Amino acid sequence: MKVKIYVTLKEGILDPQGKAVQHSLHTLGYASVRDVRIGKYVEIKISDMPEETMESRIKEMCHKLLANPVIEDFRYEIER
Amino acid sequence: MKVKIYVTLKEGILDPQGKAVQHSLHTLGYASVRDVRIGKYVEIKISDMPEETMESRIKEMCHKLLANPVIEDFRYEIER
Repeated sequence: MKVKIYVTLKEGILDPQGKAVQHSLHTLGYASVRDVRIGKYVEIKISDMPEETMESRIKEMCHKLLANPVIEDFRYEIER
Repeated sequence: MKVKIYVTLKEGILDPQGKAVQHSLHTLGYASVRDVRIGKYVEIKISDMPEETMESRIKEMCHKLLANPVIEDFRYEIER
């Protein structure tokens, strides 16, 4: 099965990469862009396992490696 | 309104970052992980405009700056 994980900076954490992209978009003429935030998108293919085990595994993986829980939030979707 | 853009490497393009994360997950004991692909997630806040204009703007922004159409695909969701 496939898991899609979205890692984003928490509200209020400064996002320099997003600011740089926003600036570039303005330079390209997209003045209507008001804010840009950049996150990570991780797609994992994983062997089948029961839903509960899967959920706890994903949370563990995010806490240990994929996200920095101090400054980042994550959410995920499981596709069968 | 808010636009969520997901940029992913095309099928068949080697993803060294994904391979590195996969290796780390294995090292941490998650042997059930079979493949990892890493992409970008971009959240843009943009002034209201008609749906069609918005769609063409987003595609332009992706082609010009946010994605590399040679090796990357993108998809987006518009939230009102």
